[in-house]
Amino acid sequence: MTYLDKVNSPADVKKLSMAELEALAEEIRAAILNRDSKIGGHVGPNLGIVEATIALHYVFDSPKDKFVFDVSHQCYPHKILTGRKDGFLTDEGMKKISGYTCPSESEHDNFVVGHTSTSVSLASGLAKARDVKGESHNVIALIGDGSLSGGEAYEGLNNAAVLGSNIIVIVNDNEMSIAENHGGIYNNLRLLRQTRGQAECNMFKALGFEYDYLEDGNSIEKLIELFKKHKDANHPVLLHIHTLKGKGYEFAVENKERWHWNLPFDIKSGELTVDISGENYNDITYNYLKNKIAQDKTVVVVNAGTPGAFGLTPDRRAVLGSHFVDVGIAEEQAVAMSSALAKGGCKPVYLVYSSFAQRTYDQLSQDLALNNNSAVIIVGAGGISAADATHLGCFDMAMMSNIPNIVYLAPTTKEEYLAMLDWAVGQNEHPVIVRIPSAVEKADFAVEKDFSQINRYQTVKQGEKVAVLALGSFYGLGKKVEKLLQQKGIEPTLINPRFVSGIDEKCLESLKDKHQLVVTLEDGVLDGGFGEKIARYYGVSQMKVLCFGSKKEFTDRVPLKELYERYHLTPELIVEDIMKAL
Amino acid sequence: MTYLDKVNSPADVKKLSMAELEALAEEIRAAILNRDSKIGGHVGPNLGIVEATIALHYVFDSPKDKFVFDVSHQCYPHKILTGRKDGFLTDEGMKKISGYTCPSESEHDNFVVGHTSTSVSLASGLAKARDVKGESHNVIALIGDGSLSGGEAYEGLNNAAVLGSNIIVIVNDNEMSIAENHGGIYNNLRLLRQTRGQAECNMFKALGFEYDYLEDGNSIEKLIELFKKHKDANHPVLLHIHTLKGKGYEFAVENKERWHWNLPFDIKSGELTVDISGENYNDITYNYLKNKIAQDKTVVVVNAGTPGAFGLTPDRRAVLGSHFVDVGIAEEQAVAMSSALAKGGCKPVYLVYSSFAQRTYDQLSQDLALNNNSAVIIVGAGGISAADATHLGCFDMAMMSNIPNIVYLAPTTKEEYLAMLDWAVGQNEHPVIVRIPSAVEKADFAVEKDFSQINRYQTVKQGEKVAVLALGSFYGLGKKVEKLLQQKGIEPTLINPRFVSGIDEKCLESLKDKHQLVVTLEDGVLDGGFGEKIARYYGVSQMKVLCFGSKKEFTDRVPLKELYERYHLTPELIVEDIMKAL
Repeated sequence: MTYLDKVNSPADVKKLSMAELEALAEEIRAAILNRDSKIGGHVGPNLGIVEATIALHYVFDSPKDKFVFDVSHQCYPHKILTGRKDGFLTDEGMKKISGYTCPSESEHDNFVVGHTSTSVSLASGLAKARDVKGESHNVIALIGDGSLSGGEAYEGLNNAAVLGSNIIVIVNDNEMSIAENHGGIYNNLRLLRQTRGQAECNMFKALGFEYDYLEDGNSIEKLIELFKKHKDANHPVLLHIHTLKGKGYEFAVENKERWHWNLPFDIKSGELTVDISGENYNDITYNYLKNKIAQDKTVVVVNAGTPGAFGLTPDRRAVLGSHFVDVGIAEEQAVAMSSALAKGGCKPVYLVYSSFAQRTYDQLSQDLALNNNSAVIIVGAGGISAADATHLGCFDMAMMSNIPNIVYLAPTTKEEYLAMLDWAVGQNEHPVIVRIPSAVEKADFAVEKDFSQINRYQTVKQGEKVAVLALGSFYGLGKKVEKLLQQKGIEPTLINPRFVSGIDEKCLESLKDKHQLVVTLEDGVLDGGFGEKIARYYGVSQMKVLCFGSKKEFTDRVPLKELYERYHLTPELIVEDIMKAL
Repeated sequence: MTYLDKVNSPADVKKLSMAELEALAEEIRAAILNRDSKIGGHVGPNLGIVEATIALHYVFDSPKDKFVFDVSHQCYPHKILTGRKDGFLTDEGMKKISGYTCPSESEHDNFVVGHTSTSVSLASGLAKARDVKGESHNVIALIGDGSLSGGEAYEGLNNAAVLGSNIIVIVNDNEMSIAENHGGIYNNLRLLRQTRGQAECNMFKALGFEYDYLEDGNSIEKLIELFKKHKDANHPVLLHIHTLKGKGYEFAVENKERWHWNLPFDIKSGELTVDISGENYNDITYNYLKNKIAQDKTVVVVNAGTPGAFGLTPDRRAVLGSHFVDVGIAEEQAVAMSSALAKGGCKPVYLVYSSFAQRTYDQLSQDLALNNNSAVIIVGAGGISAADATHLGCFDMAMMSNIPNIVYLAPTTKEEYLAMLDWAVGQNEHPVIVRIPSAVEKADFAVEKDFSQINRYQTVKQGEKVAVLALGSFYGLGKKVEKLLQQKGIEPTLINPRFVSGIDEKCLESLKDKHQLVVTLEDGVLDGGFGEKIARYYGVSQMKVLCFGSKKEFTDRVPLKELYERYHLTPELIVEDIMKAL
């Protein structure tokens, strides 16, 4: 670490010679691999952007000049050069520094970012603020080619292009999204690469940007030259740089999709150092869909640029063939298209992570629910989690279950997940969301196959005094609460509500007879969620209601154990609260 | 009505000669003006698309061939030609037929649509469904130039372009959005018009479409020729037609913005036939912002393509000058840009209608709330309403108030609205949403100026037994309930909660002393809303809670009186329920 030792801020980068910068790049690569191999993280995007980041800090003057990193999958070199190298070198540092840009870490970060396609919009706001205030710095957005498929990126480009003042958009074209790219714009990027930026038919010029192309986007020298040329431009500029994703680490170059993000691994062999064996919902879901397509040729699996998140490897995608559509990172398109696929007589199944579903509230409401088309949406990674603040899975139920016409199902176990999914795909009446449970558990009750009686809860065990409504992933927690209550001499009723999106009035009414307290357990935020519907229902009755779920807050890499304690989501704390309430 | 009399379905259109089609066009125009002048509606978009719609039905075979109308502001001629002319000719018919496409009205409509920029995405789903099922019809999306600024439109184009099979996107370029267009793409459209489609730098070709241009987009003959040429194309085609917005009605041609949509008017004079005088929140908001900008040069007003909805006429926009940014119909950009404006030291105030805010859940959460930037959002047209199903204002509170960090304020009166707005603009701590109240009423209590104690409710009158929490627009309803209760010998406590997004534990706790029942009144859907938070809070206490608001459902042009009765939102019905609950 001859050079990295000396670099504590961007000012230190500017002191180095070209040869020293080249050496620094290799040290940064080693630091990135060190972190990724130990705690996991984004590999390929960061390795490919090392030279460009060095050149940015060499030419521009952050924090006066403002950098905005799209999705910030590629912010590691920037963090290393802005006083946070410990986050890549030491175990203690790794805990402190997040994998995304984060203004509370450094004045060199302008936004917390973890969803794609936002950088140009955010940069356009910084640029407008600068102009309004009569300031004169550069505003630079760095966006990957994969993020260009998102509508917000386009809205940003469309506006940045007519800003009339300085904004520099750098398109980091590594010819990859998380997986391969999908969409017409990638034909244009290819044409531009093939013509070294000379093709007349140029999407960015069409929008009004001054455009410049750099083939060797991993050459620090050429990048510095390019950035110097456009620094302080008084108009919108788009710099298209061609880089190599994963550069410097053979495995990541050879298998770009697998190495976009990775769990901890051995640097030498590339093998994972954590055990991921065992049954999982990616395999379960894929096998179900594959078999279903074999029986029903109208089934179409839809995904928005994150096939790997659902275990849909290139091999599996090839098996699904024309029954798999990746729309690129374009969640709005995914929902609208799914609605129309259903309208057209197909059985669309859209796979989306909880936090990315946030992109689609309006499409869920207007394009899908209002039209009441029978598209199916599978929500993955839902639930309270130790994730970083940008990828929390606790908000989807509150967001989606309050939209009319949507039937939101929360299965408790593998068996029930498959039953619900199969029912959802088979019916033609409702848009249905199915949330993947957190653990692959066996059902200890008779799982039903037909969910066409909307909002009918399943009473798993009839008891008295206390009724526990244990929703979806928290069914197991409900079982534990049941056991603890039994130890206290209470034989509670245990209910599997199944439906996040509505209440079973008959069931709730019947509980009034022999119960004093209804307890709701949901793996998500309480505000706007399931439990509050129950609390409202019992508002004027004698029934007491106690709701358990997460607080309305953004948490950032807080261990699950700590969150469960904070929210009283351990069986012991729940029972303690129950005993107090009785 | 020589020809319109004979046209009851698209088949009848195909029988007419060119001269007859021309005459039919004029009869359709008269029918459109008849409806618009009597009940209000979209004027310019429909008048401009008459010829293209005739040509579409002449060449294609709906419903086998599928038309998808973007935002469906321009669907009147289509409705007239597909068996729904009564909706434009008779008073009774006008009540039955909505102003938007509606599958329950006709098999010629594929989707209920009222938000922009969705047509290409929806059409791509229909096209994929056709391919999966081995069918062979045409799928046609008709999208206006104004809608092309929206991210979902881009996501749709990006995907449609690589569909590999038939999809025909018609860009109806009338050189106008609702107001003037904003964004780089409009430079490209201008270039294409100027070169009659010959310019090499072509956004649509860049994406991969076969492209064709028609200068005379109001010539039935040329449109028929164009559509025949591309009918049954086996690949994605984009037809750029240049039309005249408002064609055939002088006022609408001369003032395109004012005549995009209009209230009932006198056809001859163009004058409104309804009285819109009196104080209104558009004037109030504009005057506040204008004066604020005079004092504070960092204030920036942001809007996404709907300035007229907030009374921001061209004159007023000119006054605001560089302190007004119209991002085009691009709500995601508006929120992200506002967040960044705040980050950059400005005071952004984004004006958005309740139903269009739905486009921005993720931007509100990730770009704004997670970053906790102090942007201000003014929500207009919020509340339970008699609007069509696509423009309901009852969902925004449930959608936005459950996002962490967002402070959602619901003022009760003009005075409080201005106080809250001024506080929001002056502070640097929170993203703040202010919902415009429904009526311009005077406050009958001392309005506070400082709202920095987040979630502190204001007790307007201390009483006992019953506490009425009358939120925002429903404060007046709360007053009426108070009066009726007094007649029954109850002196209730009246509370102005002010904060939609959180609970005042101290206030709620204090009510336990002398109250049996807390009543919540909110002008929005109950599911996920304000009342449920109160119900959860009192879940294990003796306090009864009764929540009033709307049911979770899409309603379509249901009179407000009927909705209020349905939801028990009249003072009498509320008091009846209260008396039952006590």
